[in-house]
Amino acid sequence: MLLNCDIGESYGAWTMGLDEQVMPYIDQANIACSFHAGDPLVMYNTVGLALRHKVALGAHPAYPDLQGFGRRSMACSPDEIYAMVLYQVGALNQIAAAQGGSLSYVKPHGALYNDMMRNEPVLRAILSALSKSPGNLALMAMTTADNQPLRAVCAEYGVELLLEAFADRAYDEEGYIVPRSTQGAVHHSSDTILGQVLAISRGEAIQTITGKPLYLEADTLCVHGDNPESVAAVRAIREALDEQAI
Amino acid sequence: MLLNCDIGESYGAWTMGLDEQVMPYIDQANIACSFHAGDPLVMYNTVGLALRHKVALGAHPAYPDLQGFGRRSMACSPDEIYAMVLYQVGALNQIAAAQGGSLSYVKPHGALYNDMMRNEPVLRAILSALSKSPGNLALMAMTTADNQPLRAVCAEYGVELLLEAFADRAYDEEGYIVPRSTQGAVHHSSDTILGQVLAISRGEAIQTITGKPLYLEADTLCVHGDNPESVAAVRAIREALDEQAI
Amino acid sequence: MLLNCDIGESYGAWTMGLDEQVMPYIDQANIACSFHAGDPLVMYNTVGLALRHKVALGAHPAYPDLQGFGRRSMACSPDEIYAMVLYQVGALNQIAAAQGGSLSYVKPHGALYNDMMRNEPVLRAILSALSKSPGNLALMAMTTADNQPLRAVCAEYGVELLLEAFADRAYDEEGYIVPRSTQGAVHHSSDTILGQVLAISRGEAIQTITGKPLYLEADTLCVHGDNPESVAAVRAIREALDEQAI
Amino acid sequence: MLLNCDIGESYGAWTMGLDEQVMPYIDQANIACSFHAGDPLVMYNTVGLALRHKVALGAHPAYPDLQGFGRRSMACSPDEIYAMVLYQVGALNQIAAAQGGSLSYVKPHGALYNDMMRNEPVLRAILSALSKSPGNLALMAMTTADNQPLRAVCAEYGVELLLEAFADRAYDEEGYIVPRSTQGAVHHSSDTILGQVLAISRGEAIQTITGKPLYLEADTLCVHGDNPESVAAVRAIREALDEQAI
Repeated sequence: MLLNCDIGESYGAWTMGLDEQVMPYIDQANIACSFHAGDPLVMYNTVGLALRHKVALGAHPAYPDLQGFGRRSMACSPDEIYAMVLYQVGALNQIAAAQGGSLSYVKPHGALYNDMMRNEPVLRAILSALSKSPGNLALMAMTTADNQPLRAVCAEYGVELLLEAFADRAYDEEGYIVPRSTQGAVHHSSDTILGQVLAISRGEAIQTITGKPLYLEADTLCVHGDNPESVAAVRAIREALDEQAI
Repeated sequence: MLLNCDIGESYGAWTMGLDEQVMPYIDQANIACSFHAGDPLVMYNTVGLALRHKVALGAHPAYPDLQGFGRRSMACSPDEIYAMVLYQVGALNQIAAAQGGSLSYVKPHGALYNDMMRNEPVLRAILSALSKSPGNLALMAMTTADNQPLRAVCAEYGVELLLEAFADRAYDEEGYIVPRSTQGAVHHSSDTILGQVLAISRGEAIQTITGKPLYLEADTLCVHGDNPESVAAVRAIREALDEQAI
Repeated sequence: MLLNCDIGESYGAWTMGLDEQVMPYIDQANIACSFHAGDPLVMYNTVGLALRHKVALGAHPAYPDLQGFGRRSMACSPDEIYAMVLYQVGALNQIAAAQGGSLSYVKPHGALYNDMMRNEPVLRAILSALSKSPGNLALMAMTTADNQPLRAVCAEYGVELLLEAFADRAYDEEGYIVPRSTQGAVHHSSDTILGQVLAISRGEAIQTITGKPLYLEADTLCVHGDNPESVAAVRAIREALDEQAI
Repeated sequence: MLLNCDIGESYGAWTMGLDEQVMPYIDQANIACSFHAGDPLVMYNTVGLALRHKVALGAHPAYPDLQGFGRRSMACSPDEIYAMVLYQVGALNQIAAAQGGSLSYVKPHGALYNDMMRNEPVLRAILSALSKSPGNLALMAMTTADNQPLRAVCAEYGVELLLEAFADRAYDEEGYIVPRSTQGAVHHSSDTILGQVLAISRGEAIQTITGKPLYLEADTLCVHGDNPESVAAVRAIREALDEQAI
């Protein structure tokens, strides 16, 4: 079970995230590509940091919306999405190549990620961009109770699928994360979080918000490095996974 | 003698340049990379058009200034320039790769080009980016009466230099183009333009604005596809060069 | 019956629209405010042009999306919309005040206009901004078969409503314009266009795309100055209206 | 002696500055206008905060450069600067008017401020914008040993001048602040800072970096609210000034 984290979300004079502190505990860095965060110099330094920690490099492309941090859905056409994903992935790939690195996967950010999960033309536009990119880039997407449809579309484009689960989010019976507005949507107890992490990593069922068992396939867990508390949580997850692996 | 032209300078709903009309007559397309013009979809379509005409692909990176079309000098640090050139070149390279193409050179745009010609740290930042990019990208820069210093710096970075001259601009005795604000700075007579083109292509002297002979090395001539008149001029230059080549 | 037209949609080096040519025939200029088009200098010059022609000044605020020309819906919150409308209206108002002019109305642009017509929180956010602005700004919005609900919401905010109809668009039986993708959605015959204009201006019924009679209230007609053909159409409409008025 | 502080420099998801903590101690808030920081919603909330603390509202317009935080000089023409200042001032003024407030002054930000101090066409473009704005806006600019030339230009435009000094910066003999790159450029000792503050406020000489006496006229002192240390310094300055005033 790998850990992935959004990284490189500073921009110009603004800083965000404790990238240096969380980097030692993660396996995959989802690096912002300048459309929602991460100007070119921030991208360059972020890649360097990830390479020093031997963390895999992933592109984190987004809608062109700095002001909204890529969280506001935009009615972009599939052609526009196809071109903007190529653009962002290529930009980051070059910045990685200049430091001897290369990308291994792409995880769309924010509203683009959500739109991809529920709107097939968006998914296909992204997959089309990945299938035309050098380096056999995998797509990181959200696991649910039934990943077969998603897997089938990825297979059409010859793109490997990396399924991610969330350590601190409650799930419904279809395997979707419960919206933050719902009570109980976010786990705060570290026992609950670690329990969910270990269950998913062992292939055991977790408990949905309604109390039912749910089996989730997952290659990677999404974690956060926003503040000292979240970094501590990532560290605890890392240690629990390492201990289990022994 | 090759012909290069700025291409792909439309943006979203705005169109600029007669790209389809000028493409048949040029050899090298300097393609805007979204910082001064050319959104990702425009870039994609521009690359496709160039590939259909077997025109070489060049990146045309710029300062981040859509409003000023990259023509306003910005006090960016060498590190910022290094990262923004990598970013733009990489973005275009990926868009080219998705269509089976690849870049062969980089020509900085507007104020970045001018700053590169007179400010060595800017030149070095750009060369550093090129030397770290895959594909042995050449740098296209302005020829003057003495290209030795420029050539020496390029050699330090192992970057090939492509020298460009201007068909319709008057030169001073140091081989710099005369500022547009000076009377006689721009040639309007097609005889004068073709005379200058053929002289440069044969290695003969042209006449400076002060009436002195000037020898200019050049690999390529910068031409424009802004309007029907400039496209007609490019066509005439192409035909004169082809005729001479026979 | 007044004529309104989107104006000032150039941006930096890009030009759009034949503003000088259409200005003599219109009554109300919907001036872009830099979020989808119209940089500050373009805005300044556009206001000057409108004032010389004694054309009423309207703000044409949009989502922050230059690349998409404000045509892509964005999931902005009502608070964000409220603040962005205040911002754009204020910017244009100051540019007008510097030339002795002032705004009289606001017509949201593109996707913001469409979202306002079908999403009441968007409408309320815009009205709230107008009600807090100096100068008793009216809202220009689309007329339909039943304007009562729209009128009631405007009244709540004490904002005057200006209803606009379209000269060259076919209507359905609810008084909504037929999407461009439908056959017959756009009138091309100048007889049909003038017939629709005169009928609306006289309070007579027009014919819907299904052949039924439709009565449309309207204070103003939306016209376009994109190209020589559309300017000629505006001139013909102006002359037909003037003739009728005699 | 008043205290002014740059405020409202957050943007979208990025926060900057301890605005709530520093607001109680300052008299004048220089509010970012979205060109270098401060999106419209941030501006709205910042104005509200300043009004609650009865702090005077000033516009803090900048070059259009979010990525560079307005710190990179841009070769904008006087016409562009004139229009962009009108634009930003108007946007903020409207946002203030919606909350019952109004602007009293303008302090250009970063590179625009520096360019204004050394480039008279930039100064004149800004003054021209202020002279055309409603509300008799004053210009806040840097005091030096000889303010007569600056005062004369302001008088030409009928614009009041507010001179500001810096509490924590060393001055040279011409009354210019010493560049940060020079040793001793920034005062770190609170005794030195308070000593400089009190001397300026009493009309006494301060000591230049070369040890000479320097008399500085000043209406206001520039302070910072970036972090807990700088807020503590502002509080100490406020208390020292209040004590002296008794």
